[in-house]
Amino acid sequence: MPFEPLRNDTFLRACLRQATDHTPVWLMRQAGRYLPEYCATRAKAGSFMGLATNVQYATEVTLQPLERYRLDAAILFSDILTVPDAMGLGLSFALGEGPKFAKVVRDEAAVAELAVPDMHKLQYVFDAVTSIRKALGGRVPLIGFSGSPWTLACYMVEGGGSDDYRLVKSLMYSRPDLMHRILAINADAVALYLNTQIEAGAQAVMVFDSWGGVLADGAFQDFSLAYTRRVLAQLKRSHDGAVIPRIVFTKGGGLWLGEMAALDCEVLGLDWTVNLGQARAQVGGAVGGPGKALQGNIDPNVLFAPPEAIAQQVRGVLESFGPPHTDPASVGPTHIFNLGHGISQHTPPEHVSALVETVYAHSRAMRQRR
Amino acid sequence: MPFEPLRNDTFLRACLRQATDHTPVWLMRQAGRYLPEYCATRAKAGSFMGLATNVQYATEVTLQPLERYRLDAAILFSDILTVPDAMGLGLSFALGEGPKFAKVVRDEAAVAELAVPDMHKLQYVFDAVTSIRKALGGRVPLIGFSGSPWTLACYMVEGGGSDDYRLVKSLMYSRPDLMHRILAINADAVALYLNTQIEAGAQAVMVFDSWGGVLADGAFQDFSLAYTRRVLAQLKRSHDGAVIPRIVFTKGGGLWLGEMAALDCEVLGLDWTVNLGQARAQVGGAVGGPGKALQGNIDPNVLFAPPEAIAQQVRGVLESFGPPHTDPASVGPTHIFNLGHGISQHTPPEHVSALVETVYAHSRAMRQRR
Repeated sequence: MPFEPLRNDTFLRACLRQATDHTPVWLMRQAGRYLPEYCATRAKAGSFMGLATNVQYATEVTLQPLERYRLDAAILFSDILTVPDAMGLGLSFALGEGPKFAKVVRDEAAVAELAVPDMHKLQYVFDAVTSIRKALGGRVPLIGFSGSPWTLACYMVEGGGSDDYRLVKSLMYSRPDLMHRILAINADAVALYLNTQIEAGAQAVMVFDSWGGVLADGAFQDFSLAYTRRVLAQLKRSHDGAVIPRIVFTKGGGLWLGEMAALDCEVLGLDWTVNLGQARAQVGGAVGGPGKALQGNIDPNVLFAPPEAIAQQVRGVLESFGPPHTDPASVGPTHIFNLGHGISQHTPPEHVSALVETVYAHSRAMRQRR
Repeated sequence: MPFEPLRNDTFLRACLRQATDHTPVWLMRQAGRYLPEYCATRAKAGSFMGLATNVQYATEVTLQPLERYRLDAAILFSDILTVPDAMGLGLSFALGEGPKFAKVVRDEAAVAELAVPDMHKLQYVFDAVTSIRKALGGRVPLIGFSGSPWTLACYMVEGGGSDDYRLVKSLMYSRPDLMHRILAINADAVALYLNTQIEAGAQAVMVFDSWGGVLADGAFQDFSLAYTRRVLAQLKRSHDGAVIPRIVFTKGGGLWLGEMAALDCEVLGLDWTVNLGQARAQVGGAVGGPGKALQGNIDPNVLFAPPEAIAQQVRGVLESFGPPHTDPASVGPTHIFNLGHGISQHTPPEHVSALVETVYAHSRAMRQRR
């Protein structure tokens, strides 16, 4: 059964550096704990993994933010760590805590056991993708995603979150051979995972390199960027006649933007430390020329200010990027508005309206100004 | 009573961009929990603050790493949060945890109560500075330090450490007027605090902007950099006929290095995400011209690798900076070797020897090569 045709392609057009009437906006972790309706569904599901593995619940929460806000994309409700879970490491989330793996990968024996998992173990994800795509009914496009090979490795070695990445970096500096082996398997697994999401209905895919920015210069290139590149090289460029844009987001990666410009992807995500105008000049390209679309980058903590202060900060971010190109016949610099990191669970939901509405209104005004 | 003349001025010379025979090295948090002798003294003192406020103990632990390693500087044993403690916020450290303030500063009333503290409340710090300087007997120079105005504000508002800086950023975005008031008081307090350390015997001073890097572009300039500048504008340039070099270290500040180049200080500290060769080209200056000395920037997690791997990484950092200038008649680019962040408590002490000895040997060899 074919999916319904897409009615709002603003996000996909901006990914491909095509002109749009307004700057598209979506929010990392937009289906999340700051929404009471999300909390209600999660309570029914019993646990985070219960929510993520249940197709009906995953569909329900993915669509919730679209009911409240004028967003230009939906993102699959899932976790960045489903792939190592499918590798047999045993992912769980204790209430109010971060992810935990029952098994960790810290020595030669554990690395020897790793393999690209059977995608049947991730069928719940692909089923959710298809279900969400159907439920969207062409309203906005659906983004699929995965953690980056390095980011997955951080959790696989540490066994959970970390504030110093001591164990994963110890392994990296002591046994780079083992780390490269983990990362190669992760890269091939992530590529297969994203391609299967694309086949299931994802209309764009995003690689979250959440912890690339904790690496030293040099190590980032060898242990994170190289394996993101290995993922991208294997990804489908199109599916069912539509181009599938690929987004790479390295949190804390602003210093390496020049090197990331050479990645075979359409969009680079940026956190709030990056000056958008400078990033545009560096990698955004000219009208008619090659370049990357840029996605980001407001500090999610702005959402704790009163609505008028939020609107002012949103306008500042839009103006920092500057007017996107408006030539309908050509590609050129484009901006996809987003946060520089996932939305906080403490965010007042009505403050998100102030953000989304300001992006819409001000970005239209900026285009009229030209 | 005058202090004994300095016998090893390698660090101070490098701060002033003068040629040296080897690249000087010291380590952030070099007097710390990774050393069993430190733990023994801390056990005697009963608590971290008991250690920091006791002149004899503070002197003892400051000198401990110099007994083990060929280091080129000592740094006052203290905490970056002594100033807000003296403001009456009540600093404490629970065993194995980070700093906590009994009082927090989150509203207009709390801000109204803030003032530059009486320096007599910090007399224990100045007494420690004088005692350490005497105990050093001219062996190596003594570095004094403080947290930056913004970094102090983070703790004053959050009440302790944070992983999202939600409260301090909420205040900053909601009530920038209050945040500016806090920062102005902090800046004046830090300047007075550092000047009094200089009078007590500190031969260089360092401002730790540990959390400047969590700010968005724009906010960093307004809420961190502007107040570091306000501190620097008030600092003594020299004391007792000696120039007092000033070091500014913003962790995660690599993207703003160009703007930090305009600071009225001698040295910029860098974390491991920064490419030292690029930083040298950007702000290190030419022989005979102005510029900043650069301090950093190896990842402290390198110290968990075996000694030969540590030596290789150390050589990589030195080579990344490249050969420092060797013209005895002129200033020029110089490098002060350090970690990119404080040393981990889990570091094997003998691994530090591998780092320090490699810096010494390889940096001498690099100079001979020319």
